[in-house]
Amino acid sequence: MINSKDFVSMKDLSADEILDILNTAETMKMVLNNNTKRAPYLNGKAVVMYFTDKQSRTKLSFELAAQYLSASVADLSGSSNRYDEESVASMGKIIENMGADFIVLRHHKAGAAKYLAENVSARVINVGDGNNESPTNALLDLLTIKNIKGGFEGLNVTFVGDITNNRQTKSSIIALTKLGAYVRVYGPSTLINPAFSRLGVKICTSAVEACINTDVIINSRLNDVLDYKKIIPSLNEYKNMFKIGTEMLNYANKDCIVMSSSRIKRGIEVSSKVLDSNFNVVNDQISNAVASNMALFYLLSLNGGNLDE
Amino acid sequence: MINSKDFVSMKDLSADEILDILNTAETMKMVLNNNTKRAPYLNGKAVVMYFTDKQSRTKLSFELAAQYLSASVADLSGSSNRYDEESVASMGKIIENMGADFIVLRHHKAGAAKYLAENVSARVINVGDGNNESPTNALLDLLTIKNIKGGFEGLNVTFVGDITNNRQTKSSIIALTKLGAYVRVYGPSTLINPAFSRLGVKICTSAVEACINTDVIINSRLNDVLDYKKIIPSLNEYKNMFKIGTEMLNYANKDCIVMSSSRIKRGIEVSSKVLDSNFNVVNDQISNAVASNMALFYLLSLNGGNLDE
Amino acid sequence: MINSKDFVSMKDLSADEILDILNTAETMKMVLNNNTKRAPYLNGKAVVMYFTDKQSRTKLSFELAAQYLSASVADLSGSSNRYDEESVASMGKIIENMGADFIVLRHHKAGAAKYLAENVSARVINVGDGNNESPTNALLDLLTIKNIKGGFEGLNVTFVGDITNNRQTKSSIIALTKLGAYVRVYGPSTLINPAFSRLGVKICTSAVEACINTDVIINSRLNDVLDYKKIIPSLNEYKNMFKIGTEMLNYANKDCIVMSSSRIKRGIEVSSKVLDSNFNVVNDQISNAVASNMALFYLLSLNGGNLDE
Repeated sequence: MINSKDFVSMKDLSADEILDILNTAETMKMVLNNNTKRAPYLNGKAVVMYFTDKQSRTKLSFELAAQYLSASVADLSGSSNRYDEESVASMGKIIENMGADFIVLRHHKAGAAKYLAENVSARVINVGDGNNESPTNALLDLLTIKNIKGGFEGLNVTFVGDITNNRQTKSSIIALTKLGAYVRVYGPSTLINPAFSRLGVKICTSAVEACINTDVIINSRLNDVLDYKKIIPSLNEYKNMFKIGTEMLNYANKDCIVMSSSRIKRGIEVSSKVLDSNFNVVNDQISNAVASNMALFYLLSLNGGNLDE
Repeated sequence: MINSKDFVSMKDLSADEILDILNTAETMKMVLNNNTKRAPYLNGKAVVMYFTDKQSRTKLSFELAAQYLSASVADLSGSSNRYDEESVASMGKIIENMGADFIVLRHHKAGAAKYLAENVSARVINVGDGNNESPTNALLDLLTIKNIKGGFEGLNVTFVGDITNNRQTKSSIIALTKLGAYVRVYGPSTLINPAFSRLGVKICTSAVEACINTDVIINSRLNDVLDYKKIIPSLNEYKNMFKIGTEMLNYANKDCIVMSSSRIKRGIEVSSKVLDSNFNVVNDQISNAVASNMALFYLLSLNGGNLDE
Repeated sequence: MINSKDFVSMKDLSADEILDILNTAETMKMVLNNNTKRAPYLNGKAVVMYFTDKQSRTKLSFELAAQYLSASVADLSGSSNRYDEESVASMGKIIENMGADFIVLRHHKAGAAKYLAENVSARVINVGDGNNESPTNALLDLLTIKNIKGGFEGLNVTFVGDITNNRQTKSSIIALTKLGAYVRVYGPSTLINPAFSRLGVKICTSAVEACINTDVIINSRLNDVLDYKKIIPSLNEYKNMFKIGTEMLNYANKDCIVMSSSRIKRGIEVSSKVLDSNFNVVNDQISNAVASNMALFYLLSLNGGNLDE
């Protein structure tokens, strides 16, 4: 069960709710692996995709998940409409008046998903709002860790890279601390917001401090859109200090795994040796996307909102 | 029942046919408000969207309507094909040969929908052809008026703004006069085609003449694409003369409603005070879109064409 | 039955396999002509469209075919991802991990479909890879010939135009020679790869040599993207030598038919007189597209791959 109408931020969820999503995603994998990938849970429901960018891969994972659950799906993403905050709400009203039960939103502005959720009675799923959160992507991190490590209690997890501007990292950290993991972060000081320490996160200043006895190292990747020339001296220097390579893994626990969101800068963020090794479980993460999307659709359709009224 | 194969122009319909569409749309609202928004009326039928622009909101309303009725839906709109008249017909043939039962067309050229309808046996629904007509949008006007005013006989309806270049207005006026309403128009003389008087419409030259004892005021909005600098002195002057505000409403009947097609120029076409008041029923109009699309699909699938042969 | 997992090249198929696809397509036409165009053969399967260009018409024919067979369909084509060879395989893995049973690929790079097919267990259908092959379009040629001529054994087929750069022609020639037809080609020497003679094709140097006693003349059209100024003296000169007109038809058998892939250069590649005559069966070709797509989906879903495991 999820108690809120929407899935907008990891901050809104209890540890139990997060675990419930992860367990449901495991069940959904069984639907996915059936000969007939079709469950009736969203029969007669409508899902509208509303993306202000062109991240087709993620959109694909939601469009397929919705269809596997027998929902209708339509896409508003090619829209030429302006995307200011007021128009998110008014467009949301319009979509809802068209019978949408779910709005899957990716928006370039932080807070857009929350604002939308407060203004419509349709369920809102946040697939990334500006540099705020990406709780759906964080679920992929969590599912992979759970599959391989079995759980989160007492687990040591280290994020390396750009901690401030990576919304997936932000959502993952919030969830992991709720689930009882010990989180450390390591990266250029200009890319670590000191406010993270309030989340119970340890901000580290050396590779050994960050990785000693860790169970999971996650590459918190440099956003292609940002102009890092203003923030870090050079990619070369970044590489020398923060590249996830053999040295970091030597500090870590023996069965440590290395994870990343998609499109890793090979040789800069993660060494080729590590990327091509068994430590690297990036592909596992990707395969979890459809199952966790299905879990979200299913659990939100069950909750105390007005979907079935 | 609709007797024609297609829904191309309000000119082709009798008052009874228009009322039948409106009544069917009311029934379709019940399907929409069901827990399971899914009726079998278009089961095994195929709907192809063929838009030469990017009006995603309208497209969404048809894609959802078709799915709620169990049809297959596919979209040709991204096509790089040229859009001259001959190619509309030849593309229509191709779409029809692919099994399309319905072609939902929006085309920048006036007459394109009629030309297509004459050249294919698939049903054609006109969602706007150049500056000619937009009968599907007119249905939204009509449904809203019917919901609030109960009917059309003897009703006074006033259109204010660009009467010549607004295709929704043109379709609405044709329908309203057929349904027994008294229609008045008011706007810059350069934006009122005198030919409208032949439709039984009264062309007014002052706000009081246009709005005295009226029941409905409809903003016939200024098209964003047109270069009004060549037509009207300035937006400021337009505002002084034609803005729908308290003054016009004072002339009108007490329970007068204010309507508009989407994206009103606040403060220019309609005053903020009116927009934020109970006179404004724009949102009602929008929520009628999917229901009236469903009604069209359903009624056209029943008619004497060759759909079921 | 098709023995290979994928449909990538006519080279991979035996004559029996090709005939089986054509016969199945005839059966699928019956599904298409049903009042309810819906067969359950791909129920619970997922089809992902992955096009690196914008050929919407072909995409439409696959999206409809998949829906008529009850599959889920989603489109990755708007993707902003780079399209090098490695990324085709890694994107393929991702699509497959999302539960895709079929990937319908059009790619600007020759060999992309084969590379993808070798790297995923999902079925791959090649809708054109660079200037290599377009076996799905070739099926339309074959179906039309079979419908009108009854079979291929001993049939004379002449291709006129750009033989080297037309991938549909290449696939059709490979198939026709396997099926027992005698194939001749005729065009500017700069546009005929001598390697074709190894396929058992006769390279002709005059209209009479190319067309004498032929049963089928196929316009192998000039690709709009190529810069023919570097290859042929002028379109006028091309027209004088290679335009399919009355003269060629006078050499041919009496019941010779004229075919072409879409968008013929009227008056240059084919004379208006021929285009407007009964010799021209281009429209028949187009109407075969959805049926042959359905046949491919169906037969590939039956084969010895891992679809049902």
